[in-house]
Amino acid sequence: MSVKPTVLKLGGSVITNKEKTLTPRLPTIERLAKEISRANISPLILVHGGGSFGHPLAKRYRIKDGFNGKVSQLLGFAKTHEAMVALNKLVVDALIKEKIPAVAVSPSSFIMTKSERIHSFPFEPLTKLLQLGFVPVLFGDAVFDLDKGFTILSGDQLIAYLAIHYKAERIIVGVDVDGLFTGDPKANKEAKLLNHVTLKKLETLMQQIGEAKVTDVTGGMLRKIQEMIPAVEKGVNVLVVNAAESKNLYKALKGERVVGTVISRS
Amino acid sequence: MSVKPTVLKLGGSVITNKEKTLTPRLPTIERLAKEISRANISPLILVHGGGSFGHPLAKRYRIKDGFNGKVSQLLGFAKTHEAMVALNKLVVDALIKEKIPAVAVSPSSFIMTKSERIHSFPFEPLTKLLQLGFVPVLFGDAVFDLDKGFTILSGDQLIAYLAIHYKAERIIVGVDVDGLFTGDPKANKEAKLLNHVTLKKLETLMQQIGEAKVTDVTGGMLRKIQEMIPAVEKGVNVLVVNAAESKNLYKALKGERVVGTVISRS
Repeated sequence: MSVKPTVLKLGGSVITNKEKTLTPRLPTIERLAKEISRANISPLILVHGGGSFGHPLAKRYRIKDGFNGKVSQLLGFAKTHEAMVALNKLVVDALIKEKIPAVAVSPSSFIMTKSERIHSFPFEPLTKLLQLGFVPVLFGDAVFDLDKGFTILSGDQLIAYLAIHYKAERIIVGVDVDGLFTGDPKANKEAKLLNHVTLKKLETLMQQIGEAKVTDVTGGMLRKIQEMIPAVEKGVNVLVVNAAESKNLYKALKGERVVGTVISRS
Repeated sequence: MSVKPTVLKLGGSVITNKEKTLTPRLPTIERLAKEISRANISPLILVHGGGSFGHPLAKRYRIKDGFNGKVSQLLGFAKTHEAMVALNKLVVDALIKEKIPAVAVSPSSFIMTKSERIHSFPFEPLTKLLQLGFVPVLFGDAVFDLDKGFTILSGDQLIAYLAIHYKAERIIVGVDVDGLFTGDPKANKEAKLLNHVTLKKLETLMQQIGEAKVTDVTGGMLRKIQEMIPAVEKGVNVLVVNAAESKNLYKALKGERVVGTVISRS
């Protein structure tokens, strides 16, 4: 590609109601499709999370732990993947409605992991798709694993991998909070938003959290960001924004000022 | 695989109403899922056609002809693929309801064609899926093409390719007529069902049709069967049955006597 792509993640907590199984936030999905259409960024690679579609099923059937040899778990894997296909369809349909040539790209159909990490990734169709001007829409998925039979591949691991391979211009991560805080903003009002975090600062934060061990004080955000480190090390900046609020994603895509957290190499 | 798989095609004319755009035959899909579940064949590879989901859109946007450089056609490709995903979802959901661990496998996510013929096909995830005991469900799809940008990959080309790669036990093709006739059974009451056709006989039939040129007198069936020839040459028998009628698919899967056409090497 002559122009470096933008890699955009739409968090499962933004596009679904995480409190209710299999419940999409349709008005939010439609609004985000409009913002993406209006920003008109190309090339664009989209990845979304599982939220209340993938997570409850993956947890119930312990998909991440790998195949336990029981037929009932095979059916659990099938249901988990199909729930993600259903959510993906809602996202793709909303994008197509906004005249974005969005194409569902199904991770389990081509990506293999080895002990939960991406092991093989045939890039040919995805590269062709981007060259032609399509917007691929991938998702966190139940995938096949060389060691464990199957597992869960997170959307976060996927975006870092894609950003590195395609030498992305940037990664934008749309979540339901304003960015990375010093604590969990949903539980702790004292938590402060970090506007800019370097790799060095991130290491310090992770050590502090490593000492606490039991819970991630940032409300799970730091663990997500940890997946981005390999891409940040290669010079890809990550911008975490609150996509649950109107216009933030549009501003982020257009490079306008927006509340959020930037993670950069230095 | 220690046991040779059965490759099963469900024709678009069986699972959709070809007269009405985007209209599935849900009771038929549910009945077929029950018959497949009851027959309990493993390993099983399932492929379905497009019927009134894929075909009208593919035709309107001339997807088979390749990319014409216009943005409107990109959107047409996106719509065609998404219509196929929608039909696939109906089939997979029906199978899961019958406790079959069915997993949607999306051709455009991993298969590339070159001038409409399969060029690259990374088999690793599909092989793993079969080894674990899942039933993959593929479909005729809008795919990316090395020469033309994109094109249509038919379910018929796909089943022959899969049958050869996995040294299939057999191919079963479920259609909405009783098999291959000497004419079009829907238009010509004199048309006679051919119970057994060898490769040699098939060549003769194709020459006769080649002379007629304009239309396929068998109602399109011979053209479908033509795609199977490479698999038949390798010794894979093809059985064409009427899956629109109850119990035929079950009987075919179980190897019981059923009205239809067998195509064999000799």
